[in-house]
This record gives sequence, C-alpha cells and structure tokens, in this order.
Amino acid sequence: MEEKRTEIASLGEFGLIDHLTRENETKNASTLLSIGDDAAVIDTFGKQMVISTDMLVEGVHFDLMYMPLKHLGYKAVIVNLSDIYAMNAEPTQITLSIAISNRFSVEALDEFYEGVNLACERYGVDLIGGDTTSSQKGLVISITAIGEVEENKFVTRSGAKEGDLICVTGDLGASYMGLLLLEREKKIYLENPGVQPDLENQKYVLERFMKPEAGKNMVHWMKENNLMPTSMIDISDGLSSEILHICKQSELGCVIYEDKLPIHEETKLNAQKFGIASTTAALNGGEDYELLFTISPTEFEKVKDCELLNIIGHMTNSSEGRKFLTNSNVKIDISAQGWKHI
Amino acid sequence: MEEKRTEIASLGEFGLIDHLTRENETKNASTLLSIGDDAAVIDTFGKQMVISTDMLVEGVHFDLMYMPLKHLGYKAVIVNLSDIYAMNAEPTQITLSIAISNRFSVEALDEFYEGVNLACERYGVDLIGGDTTSSQKGLVISITAIGEVEENKFVTRSGAKEGDLICVTGDLGASYMGLLLLEREKKIYLENPGVQPDLENQKYVLERFMKPEAGKNMVHWMKENNLMPTSMIDISDGLSSEILHICKQSELGCVIYEDKLPIHEETKLNAQKFGIASTTAALNGGEDYELLFTISPTEFEKVKDCELLNIIGHMTNSSEGRKFLTNSNVKIDISAQGWKHI
Repeated sequence: MEEKRTEIASLGEFGLIDHLTRENETKNASTLLSIGDDAAVIDTFGKQMVISTDMLVEGVHFDLMYMPLKHLGYKAVIVNLSDIYAMNAEPTQITLSIAISNRFSVEALDEFYEGVNLACERYGVDLIGGDTTSSQKGLVISITAIGEVEENKFVTRSGAKEGDLICVTGDLGASYMGLLLLEREKKIYLENPGVQPDLENQKYVLERFMKPEAGKNMVHWMKENNLMPTSMIDISDGLSSEILHICKQSELGCVIYEDKLPIHEETKLNAQKFGIASTTAALNGGEDYELLFTISPTEFEKVKDCELLNIIGHMTNSSEGRKFLTNSNVKIDISAQGWKHI
Repeated sequence: MEEKRTEIASLGEFGLIDHLTRENETKNASTLLSIGDDAAVIDTFGKQMVISTDMLVEGVHFDLMYMPLKHLGYKAVIVNLSDIYAMNAEPTQITLSIAISNRFSVEALDEFYEGVNLACERYGVDLIGGDTTSSQKGLVISITAIGEVEENKFVTRSGAKEGDLICVTGDLGASYMGLLLLEREKKIYLENPGVQPDLENQKYVLERFMKPEAGKNMVHWMKENNLMPTSMIDISDGLSSEILHICKQSELGCVIYEDKLPIHEETKLNAQKFGIASTTAALNGGEDYELLFTISPTEFEKVKDCELLNIIGHMTNSSEGRKFLTNSNVKIDISAQGWKHI
C-alpha cells in the first residue's frame, strides 16, 4: 500500500499549525495562554524561570538517512530539557520553530511532532508556541525550553569548591558508539542497497543515540534527598569538554579516574570491534545527556548507595591542572574543543 | 584597504560565543543569570511572563544582497519584540540562535551582533542565551523573546466585542514598497553591475523595510492613559491577514474603511510608480510591525487626539462578514492567506 502524502502547501501556514497542534493539551497550571496568539503567557507563582535554547541543523546535527523523524522530534526536545535539569530546575514549557523544505510532507511532519509530543508527555512539558516556516534546503529545528526552580535553588557551572566530589549519572560513550554503527550501516547501504543491516547486540547503544533521556530522575532524587550540588552541567559535547567548563567557571583543577568511568558492556564490546578505546568514547563521544555535577565531600554518605550516579573524581586547586588518571597510573591533561563543524 | 577577515574556525565554538557576547551587559534586574551556563535564570517578582519565538531563513525571509547584516540583526530582534508588545507586555530578555555557513567571517557576525545589540539597547532588553552552530547553506536565525506583564493585563486576539473600534498605529504598506524597490535595484544590479542605484525620495519606505520599530510607544501610551485594548495583534503578514485573526478568534465580523487607512505620501508615490494601488500595499504588504487593536467605543474620548494611532473601522456581528468598504462605496470581502513560501 502506498503511503499517503499530503503536500504542506495544501494546508497553508495557519492550517498547518492548527493541524500539528490539534492535540496540544496543557499540563502545567502555569501555562495561562498557549499556542495561537502573538505570544504565550506563563504564570510564575513566585518561582524563578530558567530558559535554554538549542538549534539542530540537518546534515550537521542529524542525518535523516538513519534518524527516523519521530526519534528526531523526541531527541530535539530531550536535548533542551537536559539543559533545564542541569540547572536543577523542572522543565515546564517549550517553544518549537522549524524550517522545512517542500521535500517533507504533512505526514512526515506528523511523525516529527509525534516524537515531540511524546517527549512533552513523558516529561510533563507544554508546547506553548513556535514558528513554522520554509527552508531552501534541509530541516532546521530550534527549541527554547523554559523551566522553574524554587528561589535561588538553581545550580550553575561556577560553584564547585576544592575537594568536591565529581559525579556523573548513567554511563558514558554509548551514544557515540550508536552513531558510529549507524554511520557504518549507512555507508554499507549506500554501496550495497540490498544488504540487510547487522544491528545485533547493539540495541542499547543504538537506543542511547536515537532516544536519549534527560536528567529528570537524578534531579528528582536530589530534591527528595535534600542534596544540592555545588555545580552542574549536562553532557552534550563529551565528559572532557564539560568538566573543563566546570573547572574554568569555578576556577579550579580536577582529577578524573579512568577506572571510575561508567561504561556499558555493549559500549565496550562495540568499541573493541571498531578498534577504539571505550575510554575515548566516554571522554569525547558526546550526546550522552547525562548530568555531570559536583557535591561537597560531606554529602558522601547521602550518595554512596545511590544507583543513579558514579563518583569519578574530585575538584582540585587550579594550580594542579585538569587531569585524567589512566588505569596505568599516568596523569594526562584533559583537553576538548567543543564542535568544529565549521 | 582590504577588510579584515577572521575565519570562524580560528576562534572555535566557545571562543566565538565569548567574542560575540563580550559586551553583553544586563539591563533588567530580573535577569539573574545570563549567557554562559546551561540556561539563563529569570526572576519574575510576581509578574506574568510572555514568550514568543520566530525563525528567519536566508532566501525565504531575507536577502543578504540588499539587507546589510547589521540591519538584519536589528530587524530580527524587532520582529520578536513586536509580538511581545502585541500582548500588551514589556519585552525584557531574548535568546538568539544562529546557524551559519563558513562563507561568513567573524567580522560579518560582528556586524550582525551590532544590530542585535543596538535593538536590545534601545528596547532595554537583555540577550540571555543562545546557540551558535554551522549550517550547510545560508543563514538561519531563531529568536525567542520574553516579556513581562502585570497580572492578567495581557491582551489576546480573542477579546474583541461587537461595536469595538479598530485602531492601527503608524502607517501601512511602506515596508512592502521598500522591498519592491530593493528587489528592483537588485535585478538592475545583476544585469548591469555598473549602474548606480536610484533610491532618491525613497528614504522613508526603505527605512521602514530595513529598520522597522516595534510598538513600544503605543504600549507605553496605553499604560500611561489607562487604556486597555480588548484585543491586539502586530502586523507582520499585512492588515488583512491580521484583522482576520482577530475576527476569527473573537468570533466577530468587521468593517474597515479604505479612506481611513493611514498611508504615507512616499508609499503612495512609489506605489504609483510601480503601478499598484497603495491600498493593496497597505492591506497585504506585511512587515509593517505596527499594532492593530480594538477598543471599546466608550474609550473614544481617550484616543481621539492620540497621534500614535488611527481608527480604521469597527467590529461587527459575525453574520455581517469581514468587509472592506472602498472609497467608491463598494463592500468587498477581506481575504488573506499568510505565507505561501512552500
């Protein structure tokens, strides 16, 4: 059966917006006015608001050859919620703008919005506005996430103290292995379209790339256990890059221990197949969307049995540098450069 | 002298962000934390927040052949602030994301940010966050504007009542004439690069296109004069399109009088040269960024001497339709379609 293809032009701008947001229900009492006016209105009930924004560009941040639109929609939201959790805040609303070329049908956009709506549903977030426009080439997604936090309970990158413990949630490097696998399969497919993809024993790393989750559980746990991190950041560019942000903004050094890095078995297995060190994937892979944070050593008792996190090192005086201690007991400098797409 | 060209890659992502935001100063006490962390933090002091977002795509919304980057930066901010004023709110913060190809130098981005900063300065708005990424082709700009409004003083599109007066600020159609002129000069230049542009007596319409302003004066005047509109929208797609939004969302009809439309002399002059009716430019031109709003007829005394606005019609029962009364006393249906880029 042929799939239905509705041209976007057949709905017009306003028809398209109505169509895409037809099932949009408000989840937060703070959302006073949502999509459909010049702006949305948010009531704040005396809390502070946290705002973050991200832009995703086809061919730079994602490849539609292996990224289904529904997953892309889900991930685009998660990436932004992750920043809100990294402030120790609770995400409440997002706005979503997309530029699309006419190669996309209404059905394709519906898939994308299915993913967006699923993420909003799971994280209790309202989609309150946006802009839908055309592009000459490719898909561009821009999301702004809004969150709330109790007065002065937000956590920045700059509050770490010497001696603080460095913690990380979940495991690292899996998303990068997922990406490598998908890139390999794409190459094979392009050369031999008949070959079926070999994606056995790779479910975990693929899911980590295709459908990451944001740090909700950790932030809720910290609230329940009355734990206030001294600094926090989410891992989008890789552990190395993020710990350097904390060091720089807190004016400190650090030591991270290779043997403490949480790495999933499947990540190790796949890293081996690709002939790269799983530690490299953990340090520089990126797109983990785990939380990296520091806590006072006096909080050790609170966290020592928490299964959501691992302690991977501690903050040092700035003069000691930013160091990584390998399993063979060699201290090396941590380096990272963020993106170099351009 | 050759202009300096610094490649974006020479700064890296974080260096580029530092460079572009180096003069960023906070203007609002509500801006607790600005650029440089996972998110910004805003204190709300018991007010309500208003949020709007817009995306601008090169080749769709702007043409760099005749739009200098500084003007583009200014206009991109204004377009968003206009939405905030249209809610009867005061803009306080923006986030800015851009995707850029490597054909842009750091100096080109500096020009763009000069315009962004100038608009922020003039409107008292803080730039609190953003994302800078690469694109495969062209420039994409996404801005989210945040504003504040006293409790339940925000104005939507849906509150107009039968008999309300329809008001519009400034004049209409000038921006469209500016666009037509620039399109013509571009065509001439492409055919004959030696020919100097003929832009005499077109200063006003060009400025209206290149450097529009948002509805700050009107919103401040309304506050000072204790005037609360019943509905309000900003004119981005043209008067026709916007009044239809108010009619639809307020479930009413309207009559607008051709002889009441505020049209600048220079707009009329240029419309004549192009052989189009200036009324058409006023109704469908778009990008005026004036405010269109309705007020109770009991407020007539308050506004009758206000030089910021003109009364151009009134709201009617839904059964009377959405009508335009021409100078020759013919009633025609108002129609509009928003964009049809795709």
